Amino acid sequence: MINQERLMAEVKKIRSEMIQWRRFLHQHPELSFHEKETAQFVYDTLHSFGGIQLSRPTETSVVGRIMGNKPGKTLAIRADMDALPIDEKNTFDFKSVHDGVMHACGHDGHTAMLLGTAKLLNSLKEELAGEVRLIFQHAEEVFPGGAKELVQAGVLENVDWVIGAHLWSPLASGKIGIVYGPMMASPDVFHITVEGKGGHGGMPQQTVDSIAIASQVVTNLQHLVSRQMDPIDPVVVSVTKFISGTTHNVIPGTAELTGTVRLLDPHLRDTLITRMEQLVKGITAAHGAGYRFTYEKGYAPVINHPDTTKVIEETVKATFGADAIEMLPPTMGGEDFSAYQEKKPGTFIFIGIGNREKESHYPHHHERFTIDEDALEVGVKLFVAAAYRFLNT
Amino acid sequence: MINQERLMAEVKKIRSEMIQWRRFLHQHPELSFHEKETAQFVYDTLHSFGGIQLSRPTETSVVGRIMGNKPGKTLAIRADMDALPIDEKNTFDFKSVHDGVMHACGHDGHTAMLLGTAKLLNSLKEELAGEVRLIFQHAEEVFPGGAKELVQAGVLENVDWVIGAHLWSPLASGKIGIVYGPMMASPDVFHITVEGKGGHGGMPQQTVDSIAIASQVVTNLQHLVSRQMDPIDPVVVSVTKFISGTTHNVIPGTAELTGTVRLLDPHLRDTLITRMEQLVKGITAAHGAGYRFTYEKGYAPVINHPDTTKVIEETVKATFGADAIEMLPPTMGGEDFSAYQEKKPGTFIFIGIGNREKESHYPHHHERFTIDEDALEVGVKLFVAAAYRFLNT
Amino acid sequence: MINQERLMAEVKKIRSEMIQWRRFLHQHPELSFHEKETAQFVYDTLHSFGGIQLSRPTETSVVGRIMGNKPGKTLAIRADMDALPIDEKNTFDFKSVHDGVMHACGHDGHTAMLLGTAKLLNSLKEELAGEVRLIFQHAEEVFPGGAKELVQAGVLENVDWVIGAHLWSPLASGKIGIVYGPMMASPDVFHITVEGKGGHGGMPQQTVDSIAIASQVVTNLQHLVSRQMDPIDPVVVSVTKFISGTTHNVIPGTAELTGTVRLLDPHLRDTLITRMEQLVKGITAAHGAGYRFTYEKGYAPVINHPDTTKVIEETVKATFGADAIEMLPPTMGGEDFSAYQEKKPGTFIFIGIGNREKESHYPHHHERFTIDEDALEVGVKLFVAAAYRFLNT
Amino acid sequence: MINQERLMAEVKKIRSEMIQWRRFLHQHPELSFHEKETAQFVYDTLHSFGGIQLSRPTETSVVGRIMGNKPGKTLAIRADMDALPIDEKNTFDFKSVHDGVMHACGHDGHTAMLLGTAKLLNSLKEELAGEVRLIFQHAEEVFPGGAKELVQAGVLENVDWVIGAHLWSPLASGKIGIVYGPMMASPDVFHITVEGKGGHGGMPQQTVDSIAIASQVVTNLQHLVSRQMDPIDPVVVSVTKFISGTTHNVIPGTAELTGTVRLLDPHLRDTLITRMEQLVKGITAAHGAGYRFTYEKGYAPVINHPDTTKVIEETVKATFGADAIEMLPPTMGGEDFSAYQEKKPGTFIFIGIGNREKESHYPHHHERFTIDEDALEVGVKLFVAAAYRFLNT
Repeated sequence: MINQERLMAEVKKIRSEMIQWRRFLHQHPELSFHEKETAQFVYDTLHSFGGIQLSRPTETSVVGRIMGNKPGKTLAIRADMDALPIDEKNTFDFKSVHDGVMHACGHDGHTAMLLGTAKLLNSLKEELAGEVRLIFQHAEEVFPGGAKELVQAGVLENVDWVIGAHLWSPLASGKIGIVYGPMMASPDVFHITVEGKGGHGGMPQQTVDSIAIASQVVTNLQHLVSRQMDPIDPVVVSVTKFISGTTHNVIPGTAELTGTVRLLDPHLRDTLITRMEQLVKGITAAHGAGYRFTYEKGYAPVINHPDTTKVIEETVKATFGADAIEMLPPTMGGEDFSAYQEKKPGTFIFIGIGNREKESHYPHHHERFTIDEDALEVGVKLFVAAAYRFLNT
Repeated sequence: MINQERLMAEVKKIRSEMIQWRRFLHQHPELSFHEKETAQFVYDTLHSFGGIQLSRPTETSVVGRIMGNKPGKTLAIRADMDALPIDEKNTFDFKSVHDGVMHACGHDGHTAMLLGTAKLLNSLKEELAGEVRLIFQHAEEVFPGGAKELVQAGVLENVDWVIGAHLWSPLASGKIGIVYGPMMASPDVFHITVEGKGGHGGMPQQTVDSIAIASQVVTNLQHLVSRQMDPIDPVVVSVTKFISGTTHNVIPGTAELTGTVRLLDPHLRDTLITRMEQLVKGITAAHGAGYRFTYEKGYAPVINHPDTTKVIEETVKATFGADAIEMLPPTMGGEDFSAYQEKKPGTFIFIGIGNREKESHYPHHHERFTIDEDALEVGVKLFVAAAYRFLNT
Repeated sequence: MINQERLMAEVKKIRSEMIQWRRFLHQHPELSFHEKETAQFVYDTLHSFGGIQLSRPTETSVVGRIMGNKPGKTLAIRADMDALPIDEKNTFDFKSVHDGVMHACGHDGHTAMLLGTAKLLNSLKEELAGEVRLIFQHAEEVFPGGAKELVQAGVLENVDWVIGAHLWSPLASGKIGIVYGPMMASPDVFHITVEGKGGHGGMPQQTVDSIAIASQVVTNLQHLVSRQMDPIDPVVVSVTKFISGTTHNVIPGTAELTGTVRLLDPHLRDTLITRMEQLVKGITAAHGAGYRFTYEKGYAPVINHPDTTKVIEETVKATFGADAIEMLPPTMGGEDFSAYQEKKPGTFIFIGIGNREKESHYPHHHERFTIDEDALEVGVKLFVAAAYRFLNT
Repeated sequence: MINQERLMAEVKKIRSEMIQWRRFLHQHPELSFHEKETAQFVYDTLHSFGGIQLSRPTETSVVGRIMGNKPGKTLAIRADMDALPIDEKNTFDFKSVHDGVMHACGHDGHTAMLLGTAKLLNSLKEELAGEVRLIFQHAEEVFPGGAKELVQAGVLENVDWVIGAHLWSPLASGKIGIVYGPMMASPDVFHITVEGKGGHGGMPQQTVDSIAIASQVVTNLQHLVSRQMDPIDPVVVSVTKFISGTTHNVIPGTAELTGTVRLLDPHLRDTLITRMEQLVKGITAAHGAGYRFTYEKGYAPVINHPDTTKVIEETVKATFGADAIEMLPPTMGGEDFSAYQEKKPGTFIFIGIGNREKESHYPHHHERFTIDEDALEVGVKLFVAAAYRFLNT
């Protein structure tokens, strides 16, 4: 275990550098699968620390390996680096220079935080037993996600555990959110086309009214959650897009529905898909219409392993005190951190940034979103302390 | 054609006798298929007139034949005689002596009116060419109805035309309602059982919730009328009974729905039945339930023949003046007079009795229903004048 | 009355000229409220006949007055002249030269037919008692319609009756469709906005889901027709457009519904509007949403007057024989001919053009629509014979 | 802590006696709030052990106090004693002698198990520090429940912790089910009357159709769970009874709905009730109907305290081995054990009895329900070991 006072002192030294990195990244956001300059910046920065083994699994990602002086296990720490297609409305001087692209989810902070962690652990590697592997990942925001690509590229080879964190505005600054087991949902996508028959708005009997039928599909789909799933299992089925018709006097022949399904227990998914198609088939058949149904499985749910989560909980307690811990329920948002957890025991952590005085309380993906930069220190302390606890005990 | 003044004079003579008959009948109502005493009363009364050929197709019905002096065609006139299982709330001294049985639809008046017609025409038969056949029918109120039975018994043999009338409280006293073509609907009955799976009220996922599914059946059935039938064709689909469940903490395994379908165009029926079953099948299948569906065709629609209706219209105009005529739209009620119309050209007529001062404005089947006895004269005039017009011109 | 043989002979003479006019018009279609060249063509053609009093109530319309030799009444005959924003897919050599504009409803034929009628009646005016007024109207297809504008401009001054006809592909060539009373519906338009609250697709509890609620609005609106209106009164309520949402993971805050209401009895309209808003208000309030509701009254229903319709029926019987008559039920389409009928007794007539061999069987507004040109002669015979019957008897 | 071998030996001694008690109770079941003979039997049996301080808070309940030799804390152990209005279909010789009343939920076993515990602990009280308080409770099955009454009568005075167990057929014999935090739901009851207007089945426009509207109420109520509550919070809203109408040709004026709401987090209740009434009000208003809505709060949720649950988990592990433990999710069933937990830290435990060979696998409340009598020993071991762990450590 690392000595607390020493940790505090070391982190303080790199604080202003981390803030510089974060602001540079914030000012130069790149969309998912296009993080080339970001990756180069990360590469160059890591290279400047000296002695970290660097590789580029893709042009948009970087892996760094800090090899401890003693043999041991390997802990992977992941940061995601992509920005969003949002037009920034912040007014500070490091706001995005790329119109319509913005770090509105805090990945600039994640990247800076992991760079800080790298610098510190690299300076301490004489003490470390085993390896800390730094995964700077691209494309968390867009399915199929960068995590899957990196796992396929072998970034988890010989890794024993994997951890990652998300700066989180719903959680107050200073708090660290821990979830045992399911933490974030699988964000699946479905498309339904109701295939009716168009015709004159005044002569419904000559048509198969796709809008009336699709409305019944939406209404009946509510039963999936309200009647068919165990109330103990969190499930969401949302129709988020309903497009049909062009004018007032023509009944349209087709209606297009799109939506999302969220599950924490992936074992329920196949049953849910079957039930959903059964519903769509039955309702459309009831009214003499046909249908097309497609379902795309999104990221797997983020499910934290009890062992790694226990280590994280102990690390947080030792580093920040028991009061810093918030035991949180799951959320129905999604994350491709799950791609790592499917391979290795791992834990994802929420680091609070919510602070109204610092205007870091906006929801993620909001055009005014920003982080509480004090949280960068929290992240580094957490990662460094965790590295010691995973590798050196 | 009969001379108007003479007709008025003749009818006046039998007015008080008709009222006596009607009140006796009102006081002694009998339920459908149980009109034995009523039929006997009619038989005895007709017999007392002398010279009418009488027969009893069933114990509950009477047919009388008035043979004119000259050969000619045959006009049948029908009256129905049954009462209803309603507890009379009127207070006049001839109120029903049979608890829970009441002439609440005016059939007492129909019977008295046809008796009066018989007495008058019998006295005038020297002038008549052909036959007037009097059909005193049982069981109009209860499917499959007495009309069908009488037709099968041959009461329409050698009949050329058939007419009948209903005393009608929605129509003002003094008015006569005429409808060309479809006049009253077929009153069909359907039963739907939603076969789900019962279980604990707190564990819907272990059940197939028959109430939730049957509610969707009711909701989706609305589309039959609103989307699938031509708006020009009057159609009604009503679910009139929904029975499911016994307590608050058990989801019931089945739900029972009963209802009625009303159509004026019997050609639409088979399509409607097919669509209805398709709807029930689709909705239940959508939710993983089974179903049972039965459909009983009721009386055929009352559809007035243009030729007989024309004669009636002319008769009314000549007898009561053009102002007495109300050209009415169809109603979605049912009548087994249609059984005669399926065999012979015929017309059914509404005779107004609505008169708030005489308290004859209550809806049919109401516990306070009664008729305006002046309408008895109207009916006799109409029938006698029609007999002359049908047979002697 | 005009002698039949003479009428046949006269019409035959102008047949090829009418076809030329019709094809020229077909080739040069103009959209509603933009019929300037069409109006000029009509004006010039009428002028070439000599002796017709011409005026231009608008730049897009023409009125011609043929004054008979004897004093008498005035019969107005109306033709509409506008085309539709449809891309013609016919291949004959007189197909539209204006991309995306097409005479897909037969108004080219209506115009040619009334020009032929004008030529013939102008040559016969020595015999006529009174006036035939020719109304070449613009903008039937687009609310508020040209008819209203022309009525306001005074085209019906001193007119006694007004007639008009529509070439009609659902009716077989050679048939003439007659409707007593209500014939075509009022085509009203409504807009509903469901005002919910947008948010994350996986967190419906933080939103007011406008799609789910708007779907309930559509479903509940079915009750207007199936439960709330008299089944005898034809009413249609169609939601024809449902637009909400842009992507799969965001629940949209608003949903936009558009649709049409069709009524044959305009007295029902205010009740229907009140009930419709009550439904929208109740359903949205039930789910915690707001709403906006607007309702635009369209053309009045086409309701044929019994007197003028009787004359037309007799004219058709005399001119084409009783077999040519089809007594039709109303249709739920709309027509601004009603604007004339609100002022004067009038009758609208369907002239059959349905003929599969001539490929004149496509539905109106179809990109392959065309007319059976033989119907032009039918129209002229009908109008000329009607003029004689209205004015000279 | 009690020595394991000794515990096994002691329990074995009373096994046959416990089975006798249980069978006697099974044969003489009494309904909730009528457990007078049962309570007397329990009183007499406890009295026969000698030295237990006995009292009768109600005629239907018994409290026994076993005072240890040393001073200390107080552990309450609760058993419920009431039977159900079910006609037993078992055929063994100790089946119910009271027609229509049956121990179909295992309370006979609960009572026998606590009697056995009493006998054993009474014999061991020289070793005990503090008090074991035995609560033999009436009326768990029927709201407002016996627990509340006993708490008000003071049975928890000076109690430090309270535990109880339910023999549980969904759980395999030999297993013990443990839940941290929320374990069983609040079983609330609601009634909705849709107040429409009755009338003729063929004339819906003259009615306000209560069945059609109530069906929409059921359908729209699904949104409460599917759209309005956080998917993380288990909530059930079930309509379990839908009663409306008596025949096929009359639209009924009212429809009666009854149902249950289940919640694990009682803080959500008031919001849910408000939302539910808002839904009912909106839907009925949308269709021009009125409503009545009543909501009865049932038992509070059973929420296990972390401290007492930790002790139980350790007790089970020490007594039966770690493999016996099943960490269970909550169920949406209800229990008035919560009334004790509202006052004192406590834990409710499931003891498995599911065993197909012994036919003890039927669902609770089934007419063939019975228990695996081996579980009686499990219960006594658990309670005795827990008493030692709570009081003597």
